[in-house]
Amino acid sequence: MANSKGSSQLASSQIEPKVTDDNAVVFRGDGEPKTIRRIISQLEALEDTEAVALDVFGLGGIVEKLEKRFASILGKESAVFMPTGTLANHLALRQLCGSKPRAIVQEQSHQYHDTGDCAVQLSGITLVPLAHQRAYFTREELQQTFDAAVIDRVERPVGAVMVETPVRRRHGLIVPYDVMASITDLCRTRGIPVHLDAARLYMMSSVTGISPQRYAALFDTVYVSLYKYFGAPFGGILAGPNALLKNMYHTRRMFGSGLASAGVAAALAYNGMNGFEERFGAAMSKAMDLFGLINQCDGIRVDMPPEASNIFPLRLDAKVDIPRFLMALRRRSVFLFPDEINAKNYYLTINVTLLRQPNEVIAIAFKDALYEATDRAGAVRQEMV
Amino acid sequence: MANSKGSSQLASSQIEPKVTDDNAVVFRGDGEPKTIRRIISQLEALEDTEAVALDVFGLGGIVEKLEKRFASILGKESAVFMPTGTLANHLALRQLCGSKPRAIVQEQSHQYHDTGDCAVQLSGITLVPLAHQRAYFTREELQQTFDAAVIDRVERPVGAVMVETPVRRRHGLIVPYDVMASITDLCRTRGIPVHLDAARLYMMSSVTGISPQRYAALFDTVYVSLYKYFGAPFGGILAGPNALLKNMYHTRRMFGSGLASAGVAAALAYNGMNGFEERFGAAMSKAMDLFGLINQCDGIRVDMPPEASNIFPLRLDAKVDIPRFLMALRRRSVFLFPDEINAKNYYLTINVTLLRQPNEVIAIAFKDALYEATDRAGAVRQEMV
Amino acid sequence: MANSKGSSQLASSQIEPKVTDDNAVVFRGDGEPKTIRRIISQLEALEDTEAVALDVFGLGGIVEKLEKRFASILGKESAVFMPTGTLANHLALRQLCGSKPRAIVQEQSHQYHDTGDCAVQLSGITLVPLAHQRAYFTREELQQTFDAAVIDRVERPVGAVMVETPVRRRHGLIVPYDVMASITDLCRTRGIPVHLDAARLYMMSSVTGISPQRYAALFDTVYVSLYKYFGAPFGGILAGPNALLKNMYHTRRMFGSGLASAGVAAALAYNGMNGFEERFGAAMSKAMDLFGLINQCDGIRVDMPPEASNIFPLRLDAKVDIPRFLMALRRRSVFLFPDEINAKNYYLTINVTLLRQPNEVIAIAFKDALYEATDRAGAVRQEMV
Amino acid sequence: MANSKGSSQLASSQIEPKVTDDNAVVFRGDGEPKTIRRIISQLEALEDTEAVALDVFGLGGIVEKLEKRFASILGKESAVFMPTGTLANHLALRQLCGSKPRAIVQEQSHQYHDTGDCAVQLSGITLVPLAHQRAYFTREELQQTFDAAVIDRVERPVGAVMVETPVRRRHGLIVPYDVMASITDLCRTRGIPVHLDAARLYMMSSVTGISPQRYAALFDTVYVSLYKYFGAPFGGILAGPNALLKNMYHTRRMFGSGLASAGVAAALAYNGMNGFEERFGAAMSKAMDLFGLINQCDGIRVDMPPEASNIFPLRLDAKVDIPRFLMALRRRSVFLFPDEINAKNYYLTINVTLLRQPNEVIAIAFKDALYEATDRAGAVRQEMV
Repeated sequence: MANSKGSSQLASSQIEPKVTDDNAVVFRGDGEPKTIRRIISQLEALEDTEAVALDVFGLGGIVEKLEKRFASILGKESAVFMPTGTLANHLALRQLCGSKPRAIVQEQSHQYHDTGDCAVQLSGITLVPLAHQRAYFTREELQQTFDAAVIDRVERPVGAVMVETPVRRRHGLIVPYDVMASITDLCRTRGIPVHLDAARLYMMSSVTGISPQRYAALFDTVYVSLYKYFGAPFGGILAGPNALLKNMYHTRRMFGSGLASAGVAAALAYNGMNGFEERFGAAMSKAMDLFGLINQCDGIRVDMPPEASNIFPLRLDAKVDIPRFLMALRRRSVFLFPDEINAKNYYLTINVTLLRQPNEVIAIAFKDALYEATDRAGAVRQEMV
Repeated sequence: MANSKGSSQLASSQIEPKVTDDNAVVFRGDGEPKTIRRIISQLEALEDTEAVALDVFGLGGIVEKLEKRFASILGKESAVFMPTGTLANHLALRQLCGSKPRAIVQEQSHQYHDTGDCAVQLSGITLVPLAHQRAYFTREELQQTFDAAVIDRVERPVGAVMVETPVRRRHGLIVPYDVMASITDLCRTRGIPVHLDAARLYMMSSVTGISPQRYAALFDTVYVSLYKYFGAPFGGILAGPNALLKNMYHTRRMFGSGLASAGVAAALAYNGMNGFEERFGAAMSKAMDLFGLINQCDGIRVDMPPEASNIFPLRLDAKVDIPRFLMALRRRSVFLFPDEINAKNYYLTINVTLLRQPNEVIAIAFKDALYEATDRAGAVRQEMV
Repeated sequence: MANSKGSSQLASSQIEPKVTDDNAVVFRGDGEPKTIRRIISQLEALEDTEAVALDVFGLGGIVEKLEKRFASILGKESAVFMPTGTLANHLALRQLCGSKPRAIVQEQSHQYHDTGDCAVQLSGITLVPLAHQRAYFTREELQQTFDAAVIDRVERPVGAVMVETPVRRRHGLIVPYDVMASITDLCRTRGIPVHLDAARLYMMSSVTGISPQRYAALFDTVYVSLYKYFGAPFGGILAGPNALLKNMYHTRRMFGSGLASAGVAAALAYNGMNGFEERFGAAMSKAMDLFGLINQCDGIRVDMPPEASNIFPLRLDAKVDIPRFLMALRRRSVFLFPDEINAKNYYLTINVTLLRQPNEVIAIAFKDALYEATDRAGAVRQEMV
Repeated sequence: MANSKGSSQLASSQIEPKVTDDNAVVFRGDGEPKTIRRIISQLEALEDTEAVALDVFGLGGIVEKLEKRFASILGKESAVFMPTGTLANHLALRQLCGSKPRAIVQEQSHQYHDTGDCAVQLSGITLVPLAHQRAYFTREELQQTFDAAVIDRVERPVGAVMVETPVRRRHGLIVPYDVMASITDLCRTRGIPVHLDAARLYMMSSVTGISPQRYAALFDTVYVSLYKYFGAPFGGILAGPNALLKNMYHTRRMFGSGLASAGVAAALAYNGMNGFEERFGAAMSKAMDLFGLINQCDGIRVDMPPEASNIFPLRLDAKVDIPRFLMALRRRSVFLFPDEINAKNYYLTINVTLLRQPNEVIAIAFKDALYEATDRAGAVRQEMV
């Protein structure tokens, strides 16, 4: 019967919290998990719903308003909405390279591994990977690469250099500002433009205290995500000089990304930007306190590497039964997941869901979960399922 | 003060109706003009907001549900969400052509004129345009084109043929079913796959009485828009055989169209499909009656070409002062616009906004507007503005 | 036995002349048919065989010497050896278009029909064909094409215009100098570069009396063949400004056309250029006289269209048995072939083989062959085969 | 005066031997340096000059004869003439990859460094480099690369693997047959085709004693140079199955490599193949003897690495004045050059010019040159220049 099914679902959801619940602390992802309900309430929260004009194929209205806001914040002449970071980074490289289809990237970058080789297949750009299995390359390595190209039989000048930071594949490690300053300085002396893939620029700024604008000033063009932190269901911003971006509207459409209306995403991002720095800053300081509490427990250790952004390695004692530990946390509305690159590892990713429960409650959840999941004196505790 | 501003806006909107008003009859566009407010109310109308699972980068959830629904309705094995028709058509051609990068299209097609040559630039596909300045080509013309290629020095086999219907650049003329049947039959005998660009397939079916599935059955792959009639802010569906579409997820992402979440668009379309045929059918029959009433007026004539879909040429007597006529209609919440291709021409495009006012009221609006705008005895009537 | 076989070959070759024989008058092709023996004798005729330095992968030596000679003759800053005209024209378009991959060409051009769509497939350049089934387009048609592009949804600026003359597919018709001057003038006012595909530039100049340099001056870049008239087994020259051609060496190699040594072809062309104008001019005046003699015969007519270059339509009376006519000519060492585009038509293509026999002898050959091949009184004459 | 200049040139050439002289022993390059004079004499040496039919745009005649000969020798169904190895390898990869544009190559390969990224720019193929700074990769490394691709976000299946041997950038090191057998075996189990870039296949076979056919049998397609050893001025052969090569004629032409006549190159190669194995084998055994003699001298050492082909490192004592040493050798018609990759290093490259002088004479040349160029007791010997 529908009724009994309904009530058993209710019962089940009481004992089985979900990652989309409003009080779930989720140590994964960049922000609050998205649901239709949350999107509706965010749309209703727009200052003046009536006044939000939708765009027409990405032109005008709230999309243009958002583009101008980002251009201003990032200190660039121009900014263009892009539906994905994959497209934003690709079109930046395509535009910067021009007639020199060769770009230097980090071997561990999203561009090199996770875009289906779009720059190669669609723009004929050779990607030269540096810093094998490391987070970033140095000015010296870049210099050597420039020099090495000379002995090849057919000239292959470098058209662009690209830096990704934080580096997702290296668990969010941040490329130090000074390293980027020295890299971009070298590029400038050689007349080679540089692109910044900083999907998580605002989070990084929140961690380092260096403003988005100061980061952006080092680079010709910058990509920032709209969906990771600002609540849009998708989308990003590509900012840079007018001369480079003036025809991006056409290229975006040619690539099949001229959405009939991108206004819903733009409106959500426009709204979601407000107060982001405060909210995320609060979550990060709260995390530092929480790690202190967690590290007082036996059998667990949160590490804080010097170049970390918001992702922190978690070491668990061999005696801890991990599946049981995760389940025990989950029953307390705390969600922890195996690393997507290497499922044997665990990381605490900090986002604003951390603000949903007091540190004391979360710390106790960890402590109790550890207790439940630890094999003491060889006897695994039996419990009711 | 906010208050006085509010009331002046109210006053202004009373004498100045807008195309986004709820009772506006808009003889342009495919459906109801989109606003944030209308999108919110459509999202709230979803059957069970809680139960709508969002997709993850276009996989799973409501996106998958929508894809399956379309595959089933169109009688194809598989269907894939695409953010734009430009991408859907391009990837269909790219996939169908395979190692024979040459496709035959209508010279007046969207593919040939309005995509920034994406198939050429990004997939190296030569587009061969047929039916110069006409709505469609015939089986005989296609046959001649196949034969003509033989004397070229370097082999250039045709990889795919594409048919667009209705043809936007020819004011929505419909390619007759029999013509498409004979074209696709010829292609089949030569082993050349055929793609249907039918953004407005459902509207066309509503006009011709031939089901979407019957149209789709003639073709290997089919594109249908989600935003023209079904209320999504953007998006389309590409349907076809599993063998062709199984890797489209990767290609879509490679092209930069792997939206972090396309679920809002998919949910709106899923909901908007319900009852579309009835609503649009009602608008079309109402239009036929309305045209009868309008054609009783002096100085105006609605034409009904045999291959028209929902767009009908409007002829106005030379004595009619057109700007004044449009303004007079507008004051009566009836919106008519110059043609976007040739601004001297006028067309009545039928959509569901026609259902918002009774035919008698609309007919009177036309009659009165004509009276106001007609130069009688050489004396242009003075009126208050 | 070898001996008897040898003498039968000799006998056979006496009654069966070959197109490669030294006294054969061949009304097809651009010059003397190439054989290994002829190439050896041309190599031996080089002024100072010892002094001819071969190039290294197309750099230096006789190749550079040839490039400089052409740059000078054509009045351009620079010239680059290319192994084929297909590559020369393609790389010219690729370079001229730059970031605007759209080029206007004649519909009847080699570029449009006979290159396997190389510009599309390898450089993503859209070819816009003008002058359907005609030899050339006018300034007005070009102007209309420039204007028409404005209403397309995605900007597609024209990057280059290309003119082929003489037009091979139109039996060598010459685009009049004034037409080209007005076309290139329009392009200059719009800042659009223009390429000249004049494989047969020297032959054309010989016919019109307008110097190669004067033709070349209208255009940014020019392609001239080395093998059609100058005796090289293959190759062409692309001439133009330094700024455009300075990296062509690399592009040529990237395309797989960096021949280890192109020196044999370059040396043959360098030698073959000497005296070409005199030789070809003599053949053309001799042809005019010959046509007068031929046109005195019954049942045959050579036409001389005003824009013809060296190809002249030949009309034969219906009573003439064409295979017999061709055979009869052939026995007299005069070679005539059906048109390669439409095998029902015949053309007299003039080249320097015309100088091999006196006009009187050739005219008699035509007269006798006609006599042999004409059906008189309905009775086809029986003859020994 | 011309006369005195002539005689001074004669005098100068007597004391200044040239690399193109007929008795020069040249420890560089693959064969006899080419000159116009040598090409003429090779053409004259063709068995029956009259009988050699030239090709028409690469079809028929001696080109076809050569293609068939190579197909047969290499044990493949089909073979196609290509003007360069760059094109042969590129088109092999393009064809093998098909719709999976991703190929694994040696980091030190010609394909990766010396082709101007043709496969990337013109065919959108991502090259994945293995064996950084080493001659070859192993089956295990290849296996790891196949496995690593799995965690990338967008599927990027490997379309082809390519092996170059000998490896030019590693001074001709030979990839061991067993390594290639294990690599190609792995590829076969995964259904991934493999291409062999063996420009110097015949030389390698001469060194290892493994026949060209046995090498070729491991691979789907094979490239062999025509100009390195067989006397053609340029050109190569791509051999493989009919299914893969049947349309190569068209692709070759589309790429701009449909030479009007490639017959001279084909004829020279056809002739030059005869007796190559004996000649080169003789040179290699003679080299082994010669190295024994040279290594008896003080201050010099020829190394013979186990995987060397015909290139052997030469170590010179620090006391040897290298420019003086090279000059002294040169006066004795023995030519040695600095390495083109690192000009500090010297190598003895063996080719058939070694057969031009007796080992004793060459050994004495080395001995005397060393004597002249060695700084004894700190006193550099003064000599007349």
